[in-house]
Amino acid sequence: MESGIGPVSTPGGLPYYLAFSQLLGLTVVAMTGAWLGLHRGGIAWEGTLQFNVHPLCMVIGLIFLQGDALLVYRVFRKEAKRTTKMLHGLLHVLAFVIALVGLVAVFDYHKKKGYADLYSLHSWCGILVFVLYFAQWLMGFSFFLFPGASFSLRSRYRPQHIFFGATIFLLSVGTALLGLKEALLFKLGSEYSTFEPEGVLANVLGLLLACFGVTVLYILAQADWKRPPQAEEQALSMDFKTLTEGDSPGSQ
Amino acid sequence: MESGIGPVSTPGGLPYYLAFSQLLGLTVVAMTGAWLGLHRGGIAWEGTLQFNVHPLCMVIGLIFLQGDALLVYRVFRKEAKRTTKMLHGLLHVLAFVIALVGLVAVFDYHKKKGYADLYSLHSWCGILVFVLYFAQWLMGFSFFLFPGASFSLRSRYRPQHIFFGATIFLLSVGTALLGLKEALLFKLGSEYSTFEPEGVLANVLGLLLACFGVTVLYILAQADWKRPPQAEEQALSMDFKTLTEGDSPGSQ
Repeated sequence: MESGIGPVSTPGGLPYYLAFSQLLGLTVVAMTGAWLGLHRGGIAWEGTLQFNVHPLCMVIGLIFLQGDALLVYRVFRKEAKRTTKMLHGLLHVLAFVIALVGLVAVFDYHKKKGYADLYSLHSWCGILVFVLYFAQWLMGFSFFLFPGASFSLRSRYRPQHIFFGATIFLLSVGTALLGLKEALLFKLGSEYSTFEPEGVLANVLGLLLACFGVTVLYILAQADWKRPPQAEEQALSMDFKTLTEGDSPGSQ
Repeated sequence: MESGIGPVSTPGGLPYYLAFSQLLGLTVVAMTGAWLGLHRGGIAWEGTLQFNVHPLCMVIGLIFLQGDALLVYRVFRKEAKRTTKMLHGLLHVLAFVIALVGLVAVFDYHKKKGYADLYSLHSWCGILVFVLYFAQWLMGFSFFLFPGASFSLRSRYRPQHIFFGATIFLLSVGTALLGLKEALLFKLGSEYSTFEPEGVLANVLGLLLACFGVTVLYILAQADWKRPPQAEEQALSMDFKTLTEGDSPGSQ
C-alpha cells in the first residue's frame, strides 16, 4: 500500500483488488449455477426445481450485488457524491428485490410440499439478515438521500452505517454457508464423507464465498483506499468544524 | 460515542460494551456445555463422548479466548505496551493449545470409529482457520515481540495484523456455526423440523455465537476506543516522522 497519494488519484493496489473481487464474485455466481445445473436438475418456478431459485437468487442478490454495492465508494472516486450515493442505494434495492424473489421461492416451495418453515439455524439467520438489511436500507435512505438530515446527524450516523453495512454483508455470507451445508447434508447424508463430486464442488463454492467476503472486507478496511472528500464536501466539513459541538440551526 | 476525550481516560461507552461482550462470551461457553451435557451425554476422552471434547474446546479456545485476546488492547489502556502485548500473545497461545486439544479429540474419535476425515466444508474451513491462526501468531511474534523488527516494518505490518486477526476470528465463528449445524443435522435429521428442544437450543447458541462475533468486531471498529499511544510511543513516532521514508539504521 502506498501513502501520500493526492486526493483525486487512484491508489496503486486498489484496481487489482477490485478486479480480483469481481472475478471471485462472478465465479461464485457461476459455480452456484453450475452446482444447481449439474447436481440439482436446474431451475424452474414449479415442482422440486423451485427450491433451486432460492440459493441462486440469494447468492446473486445478498452476496454478489450486496458486496458490489459496498464497493461503489471505492470504484467511483471522482464522480459527484450524490450520483455515487444513488448508485449505492439502487444496487442495494436490486439486491433486495432479487433476494425477495429467492425468499418467496423457498416459502412457496415449502408450502406446496407441506414442509415446516423457519426451524433451522440457516432460516433464523436468514430472516434476521433480511430484516436487518431492509432496516439498514431505510436508515441509509432517511439519513443520506432524504434531504431532511443535518450534516451533523449524517456525520454521526455514517460510521454506524458503514459498520452495520459490512456486518450484514458478512452475516449474509455466513448464512449462505449454513444454507449450502444444509442442502448438502439433506441430500448426500453419509455419502458426503465419500468425497462425492457434488460435495467437493459445494465445499469449494463455500470456500470461494468466504474468500469473496474477506476480499470485500479487505478493500473496505484499507484507510487510504477510502473515497477522498471532494472540494465542496471539504468546504462543508470546514464550515462545520468552525461551529460549536451543537447541531446546525433547524436540525434535530 | 463521545469525542474529544483525553488520551488516558476510558471512553464512556466502552466498559458497557466490554461487559456485554464478556456476558455473551461466557453465556456461549455455558450454553455449549449445557447442550453437550443435556443432549449429548457429557464429555469424556473415550467412546462416543470423546467427540464432545471438540465443540467445547473450540468454543472456549477459538471463540471466547481468541475474542478476548483481540480485546486486550481495549481493556488495558494505561498499562505498559509490552505487558499488554505479552498478555495478547499469551491469551492466543492458551486459545491455540485448547483448540489443539479439540482438534486431536475429533481426529482421534474419527480414527477409533473408522470415520473419514476432512470431507466436509466445516472441516475444510476449520483446518484453514487453524493454519491461518498459527501463521498469524508466528508473524505477530516475529514482528512485535521478537526484538529484530524495525519501527518502520512494525508500523507497516500492524494494519495487516489487525485486519487478519479480526478476519481469522470471524472465520472461526463461521466455522463454529457450520460445525453446530453439521452436528444437529447428523443427529436430528428430519426431526430438526419439528422444533426439537435440542434444535432450538442449538439455534439460539448459533445466534449468540454470531452476536459475540459482531460485538467483538464492533468494539474493535470504534476509532475512538482504540488504545491511545503512550508518551514514549508518541516520542518514538515523532522521531520516526522526522526520518525520511526509509527504515531506521540497521533494520531490514
